[in-house]
Amino acid sequence: MPKESPFAHAYAVVMAGGSGTRFWPLSRRKRPKQLLDLFGRQTLVEQAVARIRKALPPGRIYVYTNELVRNEICRRLPEIPPTQIVAEPALRNTAPTLGLAAHEILRRDADGLMVVLAADHVIKKTGAFLRVLRVACQWATPGRSMVLGIKPSGPVTGYGYVRLGPQEGRLVGQPVHRVKKFTEKPSLKMARAYLASGEYLWNSGMFVWRADTLLRNLERFQPRMAGLLARIAAAGGIRARRALRELFPQCEKISIDYALMEKISNVYAVPADIGWSDVGSWAVAYELRPKDKEANVRPSDGLALDSRGNMIVTTGRKMVVTVGVHDLIIADTGDALLVCARERSEDVGKAVQELERRGLHKLL
Amino acid sequence: MPKESPFAHAYAVVMAGGSGTRFWPLSRRKRPKQLLDLFGRQTLVEQAVARIRKALPPGRIYVYTNELVRNEICRRLPEIPPTQIVAEPALRNTAPTLGLAAHEILRRDADGLMVVLAADHVIKKTGAFLRVLRVACQWATPGRSMVLGIKPSGPVTGYGYVRLGPQEGRLVGQPVHRVKKFTEKPSLKMARAYLASGEYLWNSGMFVWRADTLLRNLERFQPRMAGLLARIAAAGGIRARRALRELFPQCEKISIDYALMEKISNVYAVPADIGWSDVGSWAVAYELRPKDKEANVRPSDGLALDSRGNMIVTTGRKMVVTVGVHDLIIADTGDALLVCARERSEDVGKAVQELERRGLHKLL
Repeated sequence: MPKESPFAHAYAVVMAGGSGTRFWPLSRRKRPKQLLDLFGRQTLVEQAVARIRKALPPGRIYVYTNELVRNEICRRLPEIPPTQIVAEPALRNTAPTLGLAAHEILRRDADGLMVVLAADHVIKKTGAFLRVLRVACQWATPGRSMVLGIKPSGPVTGYGYVRLGPQEGRLVGQPVHRVKKFTEKPSLKMARAYLASGEYLWNSGMFVWRADTLLRNLERFQPRMAGLLARIAAAGGIRARRALRELFPQCEKISIDYALMEKISNVYAVPADIGWSDVGSWAVAYELRPKDKEANVRPSDGLALDSRGNMIVTTGRKMVVTVGVHDLIIADTGDALLVCARERSEDVGKAVQELERRGLHKLL
Repeated sequence: MPKESPFAHAYAVVMAGGSGTRFWPLSRRKRPKQLLDLFGRQTLVEQAVARIRKALPPGRIYVYTNELVRNEICRRLPEIPPTQIVAEPALRNTAPTLGLAAHEILRRDADGLMVVLAADHVIKKTGAFLRVLRVACQWATPGRSMVLGIKPSGPVTGYGYVRLGPQEGRLVGQPVHRVKKFTEKPSLKMARAYLASGEYLWNSGMFVWRADTLLRNLERFQPRMAGLLARIAAAGGIRARRALRELFPQCEKISIDYALMEKISNVYAVPADIGWSDVGSWAVAYELRPKDKEANVRPSDGLALDSRGNMIVTTGRKMVVTVGVHDLIIADTGDALLVCARERSEDVGKAVQELERRGLHKLL
């Protein structure tokens, strides 16, 4: 009898609820990062689904998002059954969403395996990504939780880290480590120490576990949330929608990292060399994009005189001329313009907060 | 008998034919610098006319411009008789225009005095300006040519200079000097020497002379042009328009400085401390405008985080956010955006030339 594929019971859960402000003015509430096409012709959510589509049929791909963008995501993903593109009635961070997804998958497959993916990350090496996922799925026996870990390229303070224990095994040349500890975003000093130790990977936010394993973990460490989610799952037929609308917002707003990963044991990491980036700022986007001879990322029909290291993005037709400027982010939309030092692009969020404080909701 | 006013026979000739590119993307062929309102609520041409209007009635103010902008100038200057807002059939620089104006003024007043002004300069001290003009008009007896000279504030290479001879007189506390020489735009080394000598003033491009004096000078030093202009002037009635259209473009394209001022004698300068600027670049405009605490010139409804020394100009409603940038010119219109190092704003013209080379006429 041929061995069953590791993906035989796998279901993708693509997390597309982000409402990030880091790519303002391009990103807006109705056009968050996952709906931007800064990296190739497709939006990030399309790329995310296209990647996992190489391993799973559309019928086993779920997308969890919010009301503001669900229609646009449906339009972008015609292959995915609309019932599998779920708008949550409230933003409750990742833990409640994943609990909801676990119930749905369990309803369909008692051995269902959840492949938790982000809709707004860049992964350059699709082949390597699928290989790592395959290993994670194969390793994710009952009770185990798998995380894809990224080898740090620097002492980054913006990510959570995973501390590795000893290597527990190896599948198709891919090592699997026991995880000693999930840690929050570190200080710069800590991040440097992590990097030097060689024992830490970045927490990519991509996980694999059986749906029943997740629910059991939630019952133990988040019993109140688990109870609410069980009631939502139990409400069938016409009551289902109402139960979701009433009970889901009562769940605590908490990430899966805080809710579970820092608490549970029996966690394994697969080091993933997959060209990953969470594209957390304009500066990161700049690094990822192809550049002209003067290291500019810019539309070919613009004009850059003595200009170096800039990223220029416009929506619509617009002639952008730069003269003697360097290392800027210039992002133009019909109603707003950002000009930001590239090394300061982490602070774009502050500007958006200020716009919010001023009540300029049209610009958000 | 009360003494006649020095302005009794004066006629203003406001030169508004400029099609400058230095304020691109705000300035366009159809909206050159004289039609920008970068300095106060009125455009520069309105300000120029309002200034001389304090000395002269509208019936003695002429505006010479081009076909592209004549209608807009008429709209901006409802007080000036439309017949006195003249669109030349071709851009021939200042000498032919002034010859044309001289004939027109002479037709009305055998003792007519021409007050030659620019439509696109800033003059902050209107009172001082009118005082200087009064002196120039009083001194401009037959045969004399007067120039308003500006005390140099630095070794600027972009202006022509006037070398002063001895003081010849003084009117209402205002010295008048004989002019030894008009010089072209100097090298930086020359400009420094001029500045050190204390003998040089900038040529402001503002002149006063009797119309008959100008025509006599043209006859002597530009006989061909003088002949063409005389034929245009002689063509009356229905032939006038046609003569202008056919003969004017045959005039040599030459400035009054090259055509006459560098050649003639009997020239006098009135040093003019009038808060003058020809606003030759975005950088100069920046210097002239009021600034916020961080030395930015910007719309009050924008947002500037850690940003210093920038000039931000937009047409229409647009939220401009800057983060961590300094000493930039940011100028946004619906179809174009300029981001330019302030110290490089002299090079905006190069960018416009490149757009022209690419055939992007819509943007010019």
